[in-house]
This record gives sequence, structure tokens and C-alpha cells, in this order.
Amino acid sequence: MPVKLTAPQATSLLPVKGVQLGFAEAYVRKPNRKDVLVMTLVEGSRVAGVFTKNRFCAAPVTLCKDFLAQKTGVRALLVNTGCANAGTGEDGLNRARQSCDALASLLNFEANQVLPFSTGVILEPLPVDKVIAGLPAAIDNLKEDNWLNAAEAIMTTDIVAKGTSRSIVLGGKQVIITGISKGSGMIHPNMATMLGYVATDAAVSQSALASIIQYAVNKSFNCITVDGDTSTNDSLIMMATNQAGNAEITENSADFIVLRDALTDVAIELAQAIVRDGEGATKFMTVTVEGGNNEEECRKVAYAIAHSPLIKTAFFASDPNLGRILAAIGYAGIDDLDVNALQLYLGDVLVAEKGGRAASYVEEQGAAIMKESDILVRVVLNRGDENITIWTCDFSYDYVKINADYRS
Amino acid sequence: MPVKLTAPQATSLLPVKGVQLGFAEAYVRKPNRKDVLVMTLVEGSRVAGVFTKNRFCAAPVTLCKDFLAQKTGVRALLVNTGCANAGTGEDGLNRARQSCDALASLLNFEANQVLPFSTGVILEPLPVDKVIAGLPAAIDNLKEDNWLNAAEAIMTTDIVAKGTSRSIVLGGKQVIITGISKGSGMIHPNMATMLGYVATDAAVSQSALASIIQYAVNKSFNCITVDGDTSTNDSLIMMATNQAGNAEITENSADFIVLRDALTDVAIELAQAIVRDGEGATKFMTVTVEGGNNEEECRKVAYAIAHSPLIKTAFFASDPNLGRILAAIGYAGIDDLDVNALQLYLGDVLVAEKGGRAASYVEEQGAAIMKESDILVRVVLNRGDENITIWTCDFSYDYVKINADYRS
Repeated sequence: MPVKLTAPQATSLLPVKGVQLGFAEAYVRKPNRKDVLVMTLVEGSRVAGVFTKNRFCAAPVTLCKDFLAQKTGVRALLVNTGCANAGTGEDGLNRARQSCDALASLLNFEANQVLPFSTGVILEPLPVDKVIAGLPAAIDNLKEDNWLNAAEAIMTTDIVAKGTSRSIVLGGKQVIITGISKGSGMIHPNMATMLGYVATDAAVSQSALASIIQYAVNKSFNCITVDGDTSTNDSLIMMATNQAGNAEITENSADFIVLRDALTDVAIELAQAIVRDGEGATKFMTVTVEGGNNEEECRKVAYAIAHSPLIKTAFFASDPNLGRILAAIGYAGIDDLDVNALQLYLGDVLVAEKGGRAASYVEEQGAAIMKESDILVRVVLNRGDENITIWTCDFSYDYVKINADYRS
Repeated sequence: MPVKLTAPQATSLLPVKGVQLGFAEAYVRKPNRKDVLVMTLVEGSRVAGVFTKNRFCAAPVTLCKDFLAQKTGVRALLVNTGCANAGTGEDGLNRARQSCDALASLLNFEANQVLPFSTGVILEPLPVDKVIAGLPAAIDNLKEDNWLNAAEAIMTTDIVAKGTSRSIVLGGKQVIITGISKGSGMIHPNMATMLGYVATDAAVSQSALASIIQYAVNKSFNCITVDGDTSTNDSLIMMATNQAGNAEITENSADFIVLRDALTDVAIELAQAIVRDGEGATKFMTVTVEGGNNEEECRKVAYAIAHSPLIKTAFFASDPNLGRILAAIGYAGIDDLDVNALQLYLGDVLVAEKGGRAASYVEEQGAAIMKESDILVRVVLNRGDENITIWTCDFSYDYVKINADYRS
């Protein structure tokens, strides 16, 4: 069960002027589920994207990057679940192009104004005919207050739909931000198997939007891990429709930081939701590493902890077997780490210092914290001034079950 | 259940002249199990060791490295299970020293002629009184044909005892090699939570033995992974007692390669046995990466595959969900990898090439191979001439169960 996460109410996901959403049940892989999503953007919208660094990136990722580079003026997004169209070579690119062609033709756009996205099983051909057959139904129900249906339409092994909204004021104008995401396995930064779509009706310059998405992704989707597997299809898209009536935000605007932080806040909530709905998750773990010489070494320690199956299974068992955390710190790859200088905290309890168990620590303290569903692991390296925080979940029977059964 | 692995017969583990082994049930953590092992070496024996690179290395590891550097002439080894004496700071060093002192005093050696080893739970104080109380019983049953008992005495979550022997001829003299190992979780190179002891009665120079152990560990214990966790306590020891009557082997001897390869062969069998007995293992996977520009990039790809929980759970399910392997190759960290140039084989079946599924591949082929218990995953990068082979196992419900329950 997801850790302290429930699906949003339909009414809590605020419409964003200039964005319409429509879905279809196209039977891409399974019958009777929403598996195709179409989003349309009003003319003049700005779009920025960040994509997986996996060398086996999926065909739709290749096309997205290509179309965004062409600055064609994106007018629509097309998402399917059930098949990732990854590991599919030239044939996969052709099928992705066909789906863009079909939607563009129905909506009277150019094919390269349609960004394609796929998520699901790798190494299988995209059933493009099914996707195309679903498009008329999706177009029929295009509307602005369809965000919850959209969030549901992009789910794969997700248990709950993920979405959130914010309302802020920029230059006296109300501005809406709404985002949705999906993903719960093959989750690792750069990026997760995850799709994220965040839209605002603010007027934002292209370069400001590009700057904001990089900032936001580094604070959010690049700080989560479920299983250390970086997917072939990860994509985060930010869209700004210029319908709110505010003066265009640039990097130099007084309100730039306000918009940036609001978009980042949405991205963090969407990213954390993916971890809370991590496959089989029963605990949500925040791992903070402080006092490193640089961000890189903090990150090494944080991910050594967050990826350790031994630690993740101990958290699943609510067992304060905290020596496993010391072991992970020790093998994280800081060659000159002085283990006698660091401290390990669980929540606000000092567990280890001076190379061993803290004199003040009693196991009942650890046991009490391990029973919580949200747990903080804090490492203080005492080597420098850099810090990092990442989020992960535990490793349960259900993780194995979900991933052993995923295709069946 | 271990994958095609059964415990050796007591008679199949050949005595090594000059090595005696004795055990005790000392109730270090649990009653009624062998948990203390004493090995003695005849005077003049040569000993070499390789140890974990974990910065949180255990107290006994620190002492072993110190004593070996002192070239004291090691006469005994003392192993306990049930407590790793790791993450125990200065107090842990004191307790390890006390155990060496006690054994040295009983056997009339110097304390620094006793190498200590511990395996078990981290971050808890070594119950050194219990270990010491067990020593007289262990000394009472010291004998040369006690290798199977010794293999059993070092088990923790191991299901079967691990040991093997070889008999070779060096310069007309019969030479015996016998080794034992333990470990099945927290297994990762550099090194595994594993203890390995390999003895021979050959005469070998110290520098030749040091050269051989480095060669052997790189071909064996540094090529296995169960869960990617590098332990605090890993130790491999090679001992040569100089009792076989052969002329001393040096790096320049004609027979150097013969001895090196025989010792390496024993190390490989012991290392593979650890994987076959990996916690919860149902499949033994050999991952071979060929045609890399250098060994490092081959290793990255091999470990990306061997560490992926998604791949390991798919193997557990016997599901040829092979796109997950492509994804792992893609995120392994070779930035200029041309995914269209590589081939992926499962056993001898070509699965993927040209960036996608091979035209000749049909899923029934993959499904048939996935049903086997020993499976070869072969990646041909077609970039250069370097190759690497590593071994791992799948990820099952029982892995979670064992590690969620380990301390209880």
C-alpha cells in the first residue's frame, strides 16, 4: 500500500487555461483501462523537457528531443501505457512517428508539433494501430478539467493516481500550476521510470522555463530511487500557456524565484508521490547526508544507503539493524572517510559515533522509530559544508511479487 | 534452496599437513551450533590475506592487517560467527585483542601470531567471554581431518557448508589444497561478506603467495555479487605449510602457474558456491560482457545487470522480460555506447541486436532458457577486445524474508 498517499480529488486538480486533456481505453496491452492520453496546448505555449540518460532511450524519447530541438511550437502530447516502445530500433521510431502523424492529422497540427511518450514493457513492438484507433475517443473528451482522468490514464503499476496543484500570484495575476506523474518501479535519478507533466498558465520565456525545469528536476525527480534502475523512457515536461495575463517571466524578473520555487515544489510533491507509491513500499525514507566536502560524495553515501537491499529489507521488517547503514556508508566510495568522525542519526536519535554505537543509544529508541511509516536517516560526515537529501522506500515481498508478475 | 550445490562429504575434504582445525559451540548468539573455529598452522607456514575495502572495516580485519604487516609468523586463526564486531570502535579492537590473547596463551603463541575473524550482526559488542569460554573445547578437538566441521562452524545464513579440495603434483611431490568459505548475503566484490580459507601443504615463498592471492581473488571473490552490499568483515586467507616436500615455489618457478591456477580454481569454486547459496537464490546467473574497450566498462555493464532488482526478480519468475537487461546496459554508464552495435544473448540464443529485438528471436526460446537453474547472459559490445565474467543469483521472496528476519 502506498505510504501516506491517496489519490487527489478531481476538484483539487485545478484546470490550467490553455491545456486540454482527453483519454481513451485503447486496449494497448490490457482491456478496460485508460491507456492513451492526449494533451493539447494553446498556440504560443512554451514547452521544456528533461529526459532519461539511458543509452537505450526509447523511440518516443528520441523524437521528443528532436522535436523540441526543432522549436516547432508544440501543440499536443500523446502518451500511451502498456508498451514502452524501447529497445525497438528503427521500427520503433517509425511507429512513434506514425502515432504523431495520426494525432497531428486529426488536430490539424504538424507531426513534429506532437510529443510522443510511452511507458510499459520494453523490447516489444508498439501496437500503433491500437493507439491510433483510440485517438478519436480521446479527442472527443478533451477538456480543461480532466487532470484526474489524465493522471489515471498514465498509470502502470501505480496504485494511486498522482497529481497536485498550486495557485500563486505573479505581478498581481493569479497563476495556476497543475502537475501529474506516474511511476513506481525502475525508479532512479537521471531519471526514474516516470513520466511527469507540469503545466502553468503563466507567461514565461523559453529560457526561463528551461532554467526552471533543470533546477526543479535536480531537487525532485533526480533525488528519488526505488530500485536503482534508470528507465529507458523517463520524461519530465513543463508547459507554460501564457494565459494568466502576467508580464512574461524571465530569469531577471523579480518573480522568477517565486515561479521557480512553486514549480519545483510541485515537482518535489510529484516525485515523492512516486516513492510513496513505490512498488511494494511500506515505508518512506528520507536520507540526508550533511557535512560532505562536496555534493558528489554526499550523493554517494545517500545512494549507497538508499540502494542497499539489506537496509531496505531491514526497514521493511521495522528492524533497527543499523549496522547495515554503517556498512553502506563504509562502502560508498569515499576513500579517505574517517569513520570515527561521523555521526549516524535515526530520526533525532544519535545511533553511532566514534566508529561505533553511541553510548547514549538504546535499541528501544531505534525500534520505536522503525515502527513509523516516514523515517529520517541522517548522516553527518563532519568533513565540509555540503548537504544532500534524497527519498526512497523499503523493499518488501510485494516488490518481488510485483516485478516477478509484471508481464503476466 | 541452493542452486545445484550440496555440502561436500567429510572424506572429500583432504587434510592439509600442518593445518589442524577445532570447533566449539560457544553460544555466541544462538545455542547448539558450532560458532567458534580454531585453526593452527605448523611453524614456518606462510600466510597471505586480502580484506574488505569497506571504510567501516571490522575490528578483527584491522588486527589481521596489522599482524600480517608485522610478519610475526602466524600460528593460529580464530573465527567466530554470530557477531561481526564491526561498527564497534575502540572497544571492538580491545575485545578482538582479548580473544587473540586468550588463544595465544592457551597454545603458547604470541597474541599477534593469532589472526581473528568475526561474522554476523554489525554494531553489537562481541561477547568475548563466550568466545574465550569456547576455546578449550575447540582446542580439544583440533585435528587435520576436521575441514567439514570447520566449514560448518563458519556458516551464518548459509544453507550448506562450502569446501573443496585438489591434489596436484609439483616437482614430483603430491600437494594438497583444501579450502572452505562462508557467505550468502551482503555479497559484493572488494569483497563479499564472506570468509574464505585456502590451505596448501606446498612450500611457497611469501611473495609468490602474495602474488597468487591477488590473482586468485580477482578471478573469484571479486567476480561475485548477490546484493551489491560490500561487507565490513570480508577476508580471504591463503596458507602454505611447507610440508609437502616440494622445492619452494617462487614467481620464477616452472610450477608457479600450476600452483597459482590450482589455488585460483579452488577460490573460484568457493566463490561460486557462495552465489549458489545466495540468500533465497533459485537461479545461478553467469554474466559475460565481451568486446569492451577496457575491463572497467565491461565490469560496469556486467554489474549493472547483476545488481538490477528488476532483472533479478524477472529471473526469479523465469520470465524472459529481457528488455530490462537492455535498460541496464543502457544505464551502466558507458556514455558513448552505440546501442545499435551490440548484441544480447541468453544462453546461445541471440535476443537483441540493432537496437531492438533480433528478427530471429521468438519468446519461446527465451522462456525455455529461463526455466533452467544455470543461465548465461552474454553481452557483446563490439567496441574492443576486453571481456569479463561475473556470477550472481536471482532475487526471490526468500531474500526479503531472510533479511527481514535475520536478527530474530
